[in-house]
Amino acid sequence: MSTVTELRVRYAETDQMGVVYYANYLVWFEVGRVEFMRSLGFDYKQMEVEDGCILPVVEANCRYRAPARYDDVILIEAGPVILKGSLLKFAYRVFRASNAREGQLLLAEGETVHIVCDASMQKCLMPERYAAPIRSAIRFTDRDEQQDMDD
Amino acid sequence: MSTVTELRVRYAETDQMGVVYYANYLVWFEVGRVEFMRSLGFDYKQMEVEDGCILPVVEANCRYRAPARYDDVILIEAGPVILKGSLLKFAYRVFRASNAREGQLLLAEGETVHIVCDASMQKCLMPERYAAPIRSAIRFTDRDEQQDMDD
Amino acid sequence: MSTVTELRVRYAETDQMGVVYYANYLVWFEVGRVEFMRSLGFDYKQMEVEDGCILPVVEANCRYRAPARYDDVILIEAGPVILKGSLLKFAYRVFRASNAREGQLLLAEGETVHIVCDASMQKCLMPERYAAPIRSAIRFTDRDEQQDMDD
Amino acid sequence: MSTVTELRVRYAETDQMGVVYYANYLVWFEVGRVEFMRSLGFDYKQMEVEDGCILPVVEANCRYRAPARYDDVILIEAGPVILKGSLLKFAYRVFRASNAREGQLLLAEGETVHIVCDASMQKCLMPERYAAPIRSAIRFTDRDEQQDMDD
Repeated sequence: MSTVTELRVRYAETDQMGVVYYANYLVWFEVGRVEFMRSLGFDYKQMEVEDGCILPVVEANCRYRAPARYDDVILIEAGPVILKGSLLKFAYRVFRASNAREGQLLLAEGETVHIVCDASMQKCLMPERYAAPIRSAIRFTDRDEQQDMDD
Repeated sequence: MSTVTELRVRYAETDQMGVVYYANYLVWFEVGRVEFMRSLGFDYKQMEVEDGCILPVVEANCRYRAPARYDDVILIEAGPVILKGSLLKFAYRVFRASNAREGQLLLAEGETVHIVCDASMQKCLMPERYAAPIRSAIRFTDRDEQQDMDD
Repeated sequence: MSTVTELRVRYAETDQMGVVYYANYLVWFEVGRVEFMRSLGFDYKQMEVEDGCILPVVEANCRYRAPARYDDVILIEAGPVILKGSLLKFAYRVFRASNAREGQLLLAEGETVHIVCDASMQKCLMPERYAAPIRSAIRFTDRDEQQDMDD
Repeated sequence: MSTVTELRVRYAETDQMGVVYYANYLVWFEVGRVEFMRSLGFDYKQMEVEDGCILPVVEANCRYRAPARYDDVILIEAGPVILKGSLLKFAYRVFRASNAREGQLLLAEGETVHIVCDASMQKCLMPERYAAPIRSAIRFTDRDEQQDMDD
């Protein structure tokens, strides 16, 4: 299970090549990740503040397929793919939304890997009230993919 | 008294107009401000961590004279101009450094106004070990300017 | 006449003080400015590409009233206040949206001043098809304010 | 062969976790990449402007080992590892410089993959005057590594 978040490319996000600067996709991944969390009924702010549970990134990867441009409407698909012990992995796909002239286009895809940590930045297990819905979301995705393969 | 800090324009700082995006000058102001502090023998990190003394910005102004471009060498002149109670004001001038073809050029000038706060974000007086050298720096500048006017 | 644009504070926009870094308000001003343009039925992208009409910023000011925090819903009110020759001035107010616990709160207000330029960055007059609706929007605002004063 | 570039962490680069926001490492990679180019006697700006030769990123990866913090002095080691046809790959290591209390520390490592393109964003071969020194730099690195393995 993943969520789709929409945003519009800001002027600040472009560079002199006339396209979105490559580091900004990692910012968008984070926007999508947070909205996925919200879709499960809790927010990352609450995790940090109330549970002292933080998710520092230990790895980030992005493959760029086509450039995003100023004022494009962007769709960020984000969802968890692995939660094993303290390791949490998210996958992302970034699309340009369909417009009058063109259909939807894949711009980039990538992953981030996180280690669940407590407030003192020590590795810990994710509180079950977060872990359970994340695990369900992963199972949901796996079932979809299994089905895709069976088709 | 002010300090001059040098940096080079990053690709990330440009926008599709082919020049540095306007918000980045406020980032550069902050870089210059921190280096001014360091020139007085203390650093802002230490102020925040050891003294719980923080300097949130309550006002920022920038006038843009000429565009900075990718890879330009930039000089940031920064120094305090007012310290009165909890109010601290800095002034800045941003230059493009002289290069083989052209002389130094003023790109922007501006100010930031800060309120000295304690760790709980309440207005307070700046610890004297910071305030005294800042006051000296301001007097030094005033004397220079007086001299300029007398010439 | 002004428009109100909504966005959510990104993790990337915070700094170690736990609040939104001050330069990001200028990015938000730009987001609001662009949406105002769109509300008039044209977009800034089109202005740049089709008419070679660009709006470099020559001045930006921001007064910070209260900090924005991660995940806050932000409202950006943006509208033109002066169009005289090549000079275009916008005014902005940034609010935190009402939430379950608190009402709407003014976080910052400011202005940007722009010079209308052609593709070669020379000062020019704004094409009338953009200037006319902007002038109407300003008159609309003035009338509102007049009315406010009359009340 | 690689170059080492030094920079200092900006306040703007931190987030509310008190460490450098993860997308900024990709900005630093770019800073290191440009300085590597400069060490070969040409600059990326010249490549873009004079030769219409641009290097869009098609892939970026980063593994985060330890957090960078505000005001840390950062060393970015950057150098090319593959140039094959239109494909150019750079590798990076980011260190915190030694300070009074601690030795040098590896913070992150990663790679970027670029496709050499002409001004119309079509894949092309890198002009030989850039390609030759880059190939030499790669051979130089390979020889070093071979030697390391022989030791």
